[in-house]
Amino acid sequence: MQISNPERAQILIEALPYIQQYHGRTVVIKYGGNAMINEELKQTVMSDIVLLEQVGIHVVLVHGGGPEISDMLKRLGKESRFVGGMRYTDEETVEVVQMVLAGKINKALVQLLSQNNVRALGLCGLDGGMIKAKKLEAEEDLGFVGDITEIDPQIIQDAIDRGYTPVISTVAGGENGEVYNINADIAAAEIAAKLGAVKLILMTDIVGLLRDRNDPSTVIPEISVSEVPLLKSQGIIQGGMIPKVDCCVEAIRRGVERANIIDGRINHSILIEMFTDEGIGTMFH
Amino acid sequence: MQISNPERAQILIEALPYIQQYHGRTVVIKYGGNAMINEELKQTVMSDIVLLEQVGIHVVLVHGGGPEISDMLKRLGKESRFVGGMRYTDEETVEVVQMVLAGKINKALVQLLSQNNVRALGLCGLDGGMIKAKKLEAEEDLGFVGDITEIDPQIIQDAIDRGYTPVISTVAGGENGEVYNINADIAAAEIAAKLGAVKLILMTDIVGLLRDRNDPSTVIPEISVSEVPLLKSQGIIQGGMIPKVDCCVEAIRRGVERANIIDGRINHSILIEMFTDEGIGTMFH
Amino acid sequence: MQISNPERAQILIEALPYIQQYHGRTVVIKYGGNAMINEELKQTVMSDIVLLEQVGIHVVLVHGGGPEISDMLKRLGKESRFVGGMRYTDEETVEVVQMVLAGKINKALVQLLSQNNVRALGLCGLDGGMIKAKKLEAEEDLGFVGDITEIDPQIIQDAIDRGYTPVISTVAGGENGEVYNINADIAAAEIAAKLGAVKLILMTDIVGLLRDRNDPSTVIPEISVSEVPLLKSQGIIQGGMIPKVDCCVEAIRRGVERANIIDGRINHSILIEMFTDEGIGTMFH
Amino acid sequence: MQISNPERAQILIEALPYIQQYHGRTVVIKYGGNAMINEELKQTVMSDIVLLEQVGIHVVLVHGGGPEISDMLKRLGKESRFVGGMRYTDEETVEVVQMVLAGKINKALVQLLSQNNVRALGLCGLDGGMIKAKKLEAEEDLGFVGDITEIDPQIIQDAIDRGYTPVISTVAGGENGEVYNINADIAAAEIAAKLGAVKLILMTDIVGLLRDRNDPSTVIPEISVSEVPLLKSQGIIQGGMIPKVDCCVEAIRRGVERANIIDGRINHSILIEMFTDEGIGTMFH
Amino acid sequence: MQISNPERAQILIEALPYIQQYHGRTVVIKYGGNAMINEELKQTVMSDIVLLEQVGIHVVLVHGGGPEISDMLKRLGKESRFVGGMRYTDEETVEVVQMVLAGKINKALVQLLSQNNVRALGLCGLDGGMIKAKKLEAEEDLGFVGDITEIDPQIIQDAIDRGYTPVISTVAGGENGEVYNINADIAAAEIAAKLGAVKLILMTDIVGLLRDRNDPSTVIPEISVSEVPLLKSQGIIQGGMIPKVDCCVEAIRRGVERANIIDGRINHSILIEMFTDEGIGTMFH
Amino acid sequence: MQISNPERAQILIEALPYIQQYHGRTVVIKYGGNAMINEELKQTVMSDIVLLEQVGIHVVLVHGGGPEISDMLKRLGKESRFVGGMRYTDEETVEVVQMVLAGKINKALVQLLSQNNVRALGLCGLDGGMIKAKKLEAEEDLGFVGDITEIDPQIIQDAIDRGYTPVISTVAGGENGEVYNINADIAAAEIAAKLGAVKLILMTDIVGLLRDRNDPSTVIPEISVSEVPLLKSQGIIQGGMIPKVDCCVEAIRRGVERANIIDGRINHSILIEMFTDEGIGTMFH
Repeated sequence: MQISNPERAQILIEALPYIQQYHGRTVVIKYGGNAMINEELKQTVMSDIVLLEQVGIHVVLVHGGGPEISDMLKRLGKESRFVGGMRYTDEETVEVVQMVLAGKINKALVQLLSQNNVRALGLCGLDGGMIKAKKLEAEEDLGFVGDITEIDPQIIQDAIDRGYTPVISTVAGGENGEVYNINADIAAAEIAAKLGAVKLILMTDIVGLLRDRNDPSTVIPEISVSEVPLLKSQGIIQGGMIPKVDCCVEAIRRGVERANIIDGRINHSILIEMFTDEGIGTMFH
Repeated sequence: MQISNPERAQILIEALPYIQQYHGRTVVIKYGGNAMINEELKQTVMSDIVLLEQVGIHVVLVHGGGPEISDMLKRLGKESRFVGGMRYTDEETVEVVQMVLAGKINKALVQLLSQNNVRALGLCGLDGGMIKAKKLEAEEDLGFVGDITEIDPQIIQDAIDRGYTPVISTVAGGENGEVYNINADIAAAEIAAKLGAVKLILMTDIVGLLRDRNDPSTVIPEISVSEVPLLKSQGIIQGGMIPKVDCCVEAIRRGVERANIIDGRINHSILIEMFTDEGIGTMFH
Repeated sequence: MQISNPERAQILIEALPYIQQYHGRTVVIKYGGNAMINEELKQTVMSDIVLLEQVGIHVVLVHGGGPEISDMLKRLGKESRFVGGMRYTDEETVEVVQMVLAGKINKALVQLLSQNNVRALGLCGLDGGMIKAKKLEAEEDLGFVGDITEIDPQIIQDAIDRGYTPVISTVAGGENGEVYNINADIAAAEIAAKLGAVKLILMTDIVGLLRDRNDPSTVIPEISVSEVPLLKSQGIIQGGMIPKVDCCVEAIRRGVERANIIDGRINHSILIEMFTDEGIGTMFH
Repeated sequence: MQISNPERAQILIEALPYIQQYHGRTVVIKYGGNAMINEELKQTVMSDIVLLEQVGIHVVLVHGGGPEISDMLKRLGKESRFVGGMRYTDEETVEVVQMVLAGKINKALVQLLSQNNVRALGLCGLDGGMIKAKKLEAEEDLGFVGDITEIDPQIIQDAIDRGYTPVISTVAGGENGEVYNINADIAAAEIAAKLGAVKLILMTDIVGLLRDRNDPSTVIPEISVSEVPLLKSQGIIQGGMIPKVDCCVEAIRRGVERANIIDGRINHSILIEMFTDEGIGTMFH
Repeated sequence: MQISNPERAQILIEALPYIQQYHGRTVVIKYGGNAMINEELKQTVMSDIVLLEQVGIHVVLVHGGGPEISDMLKRLGKESRFVGGMRYTDEETVEVVQMVLAGKINKALVQLLSQNNVRALGLCGLDGGMIKAKKLEAEEDLGFVGDITEIDPQIIQDAIDRGYTPVISTVAGGENGEVYNINADIAAAEIAAKLGAVKLILMTDIVGLLRDRNDPSTVIPEISVSEVPLLKSQGIIQGGMIPKVDCCVEAIRRGVERANIIDGRINHSILIEMFTDEGIGTMFH
Repeated sequence: MQISNPERAQILIEALPYIQQYHGRTVVIKYGGNAMINEELKQTVMSDIVLLEQVGIHVVLVHGGGPEISDMLKRLGKESRFVGGMRYTDEETVEVVQMVLAGKINKALVQLLSQNNVRALGLCGLDGGMIKAKKLEAEEDLGFVGDITEIDPQIIQDAIDRGYTPVISTVAGGENGEVYNINADIAAAEIAAKLGAVKLILMTDIVGLLRDRNDPSTVIPEISVSEVPLLKSQGIIQGGMIPKVDCCVEAIRRGVERANIIDGRINHSILIEMFTDEGIGTMFH
């Protein structure tokens, strides 16, 4: 790419209206999928966050951790059992989940941001009593899979106010001292709502919501939450997309201005979504 | 220019280290020459300032106003008399200078910035007793051309602290209520020093400091103030360049980190200087 | 005047209840007429303002500028055309208006106050986007005579909070970057209302509202805004008094406690109005 | 006195430089003598204080209480014994002193100021541990007459900062819980020094320092502390004046700008001293 | 008492829930009776207050002063006349009341607390215009016995905010500068209500509210204000208890969470009430 | 234990001087050994911390984690290799160390405190760039065992200022993004020094420093750091005690007022040390 300095200046200027729009506001990013595994993608996510922070946009990073949890369970000789697509989480498993999420992945992200001169603070739902949960009621017992009962965003807001970028693992505390594993998409949506965030971004491994699921060129760039029921009935929103779409709808309903499902497999997908006219993936409003 | 969204993101990322470097700091820009006359240039200057403010850099804009002053004097049937290259400034002239600078140019800039959503505040050296001056002692009498005796940066700092972008006309008050016309380059350098600015930018109509004055490709990109005496003795710094270079040297000596003579005839010259590796014009350190 | 020190002390004490009444409150003064032309009057106005500021009363000075504008237009060979008593204001004229008001008169007042140790800040309606206007709709086209559409008092309040005395020229910005000339009485009344001022003072060249317009001894010292319609129907309020009275009525209706039409031709008319039992001119409540 | 409104305004204006000089500063007034007994004088002292507070000058009122203490002792059948001009203060006496000063005189002054809309706060040297003392060492035993060992001005400053006018009784606490009676002139001087007051005023029942003690017209209006030793050696400063002069000298030496011995028998003596050219009594600098 | 260190630690731990409950809240204590006379009791009250302050509970101490007032009146040869159990208070008497309460008892308590490293501030109802009163209307004239018309808690709150422990004498100012003696129980209840206190404690010389007035073991530990009318009709609440109970009821009705009548004759009765399960005396809620 | 309420109050009062001494100060506690394993001890440590926080003492809890790390390594089939008493820490090991310390133990402590109504915040040396380290230089290679190069206490202080109790895992970041395991005693001492802590407490599994290592009754209760060299030369400080003593000496040298080696096997050892005359273990000053 050979781009002249005046062109570079022009591009910065073209990003200006978007910077102004988000300045001083909070954006909650659910970080997961390939963007957490591929080293190059990971690095572009970090630099995107650094840029957002630098131009005055507050980022709250909520992360998942699927593969590393499975990997650690395997190393411990613990077989994973799945019930209706969800991992059955016995006491030993939830301990590993907490350890890998809050001790390994979370702190590694904190260190990466730190190396990029961002003052990051790694939190989990136990810190400051942030996330409280109870056992998720499901048809089949899922063990220590939790259902959020209350979110206290104070510790996140305190961190933002003091200039830290919060990085959050989604384990939560139960009433009797037990720990629950929480779905990170749902936690991100709830945190966005509680913080009065301007935007929720779910990083995924798909192009976005497709009219024709076999044709990536049919991505729906923008959609009102009121259209969601129809799209569900038409089968356009289906399968694994349903919970993600539901998170977006819930966030919008509770006051978040925009919710996005973006393709985390693209370099700088966050910046493209936030700072260009076309954006990326599907935006709910 | 057909630049893809990922390329746009990449360019934003490449500007990041510069944004970080200047974040929360103050940059004093002396605005003058073609960049104040040509409408397209004027607009790019405005958008550069908006961008700087948006990413957390405080701009103080010090402006001149040569042609409009001459034009108004002509319309009033007042002939301009020059003494050693400087305008002889009688009482009627200094009144016109004040009126055109503080009433016309200054407020027009304020309005332009305001239309770009920047909260600008037009000041002159009389407001808050900011600039005090006495008669400049020269070989020949220059009338009400002033020599700065004291700068009180409080009103500028108050404006910055309250979120305004100060736009400054360089007329100053004398001891007995008289008004002086002040050289805007000198005033900008003194203000930069008093504010503890990180950078002083003098916008000019030249490419920069040239080793061979006939060859624009011989521009000196970077120079230490300790090399200035030699370059003067070699005749590389000469003529109209001398006072501008002296301003830069003085600013550096008094603690400003970088002082730049940039080519205001280039679109977005401010952004290019501040946000690219090569910069533009000549930088003194 | 031979007044003993104990008498002096007694007079200070008698001013005390008035000082207490206005302490920490804001008074908007429309400054115009002879008090702006006569040098002695001008000096007493300045010292009155200094005293008010010193005893803890915040002054906002809104000024007009008729004669100097006409004078400058004449010097520029521009003939003034009047339509129904108002100056037709073409583009060149509004430019001169802005220049003379914001560049000459305003900054001269700032300097005068500064010489009296008051930290003054000269503002016009363009600074901080303070006054927005549109073309005044009238029977005959008046050019760039403006009708206020919005006042944002933030920059005035910021100045007061930081200890500056705001001096305001009443030019305003239009939607497309054009500039309008605004009636200073109306602007003063609107600013008083927006600031929650305790008092609006209009300095004029008349004694006050007279029951018999040929007999200055028939001045009406105090009047409720509810009596205004009757006085209008009786012809007691008529001619040039009507717009000034309307400003006072409007200010009172929008929460200003007192509005006064005072005789600016009397030395220290502001202090007499504010700090004596009888006051001066006509007070609306 | 028939003084016209313009004359009144003029007198206010003439007080302005003095108001400016003391604005935001603290003045410590030792209140005593006739000015505490005569009802008219008392009322003018109160109104003087109200005016000072209103124009932004902080007053700290330190009071004595001689006659009321003697009166109460007499009513209790307690004979006063004097040693070298000072009252011998046994335990019962110091208890009465504390009770009369802090419970009667102090709170009565607080109430008087309160009726004049000043928020007064009555303190004694015990409150907040303000004044610590030990037994005064003298040739003859004086009982519980104290010598100040330490002044903590925090509670006075806190009161000023919160907008209260402190009224102070000069009893102090000893190391073992005993209470001492403190000379009010000395306490006022020490408090002025500790608070960084701009002025100390001692209200007395004399005209001032006289060159010829029999001729009130020979009052010395102003004197440098460096001249005091000579005046003492000449016998011009002698007798009961010596301790008062010493208080003034001590205050000046420790940074108070001006110390005054004024004639409290004159109405509004405080205002006359502070707001007129001639002042009243004798000023030390 | 031979208590081991681990036992000591255990006792501290058992006080923890109570400390947590009151932390950062205000408790108003009416101090009177034997606890003010007996030296050992007095010392334990002081140390109880020190402990409360130290663990972050704000104490406001409102004191009475019966015996010392009577004693002083007797020493002054003034006979006390009682009307329906209340002292007839002529002008001379109210002066003595003020003097003894605000000058003697109050400041002695301030000094005692000060010796325990608590920064105390002695106030009476005149300071800062805290308590306003009018003549109490009763069947027979009681002289200057006052009925509270208004309480301004600002000066108390300011003292708390600045870290002082307010000690309050309950004399109040009347409309025309007269002073009234106020019942300290009533004043304490009103102050507690105005401050939003969490608890009102009335220290008395009785065990508490007894079911059988002759049997101290029948103390009622806890009672709802709704049960009071029944207990009155049964004669269980009667005589001198009625006004104290009414104070508690009034405080609860106006938002104080708990009001207690405790036995001030027991060492550390305040701590026992606040930091043990059983408490002491009778608690109203 | 049957202790009466008055006795309870008395014990609280006796703890008062200690509470006053530490109020508003910071105490750093290194938590480790049996007190982390035994459930009853763990609970008393938690309640001790709650009490300290409640009475206004700031606690910073630095924890180790030996047995759980070994246990996890064993479960992962990773053999621990020891070099000169220290664990050789390869990359896989340090990853496990980080995960167990920051993800498991740290967050479990946070949750325990949270259940006791303390707002805890789990941090590791990576958060906010708190601890930077380089490879420890030792005779034999120890892998990723780190030597602290810099401590930035800002994130700890921010947490304290916002009312959180910081719980700290001692892993640190290296220059190139690698992670180091840090000795928790050393980290606690350095953190105490950097925070200006009043006290450092090292919880151990020994009685304290013994004159005769076989006789627990010979514990040295208090010792000056200047006596340490002699005790080392006498062999009284030897073996595993040396590094702990060195931590205490270092902390004292850098301004911590007291450093204690206490016996964590005793219930409420922290409270006993802090709130009783005898204390527990050995105190360095």
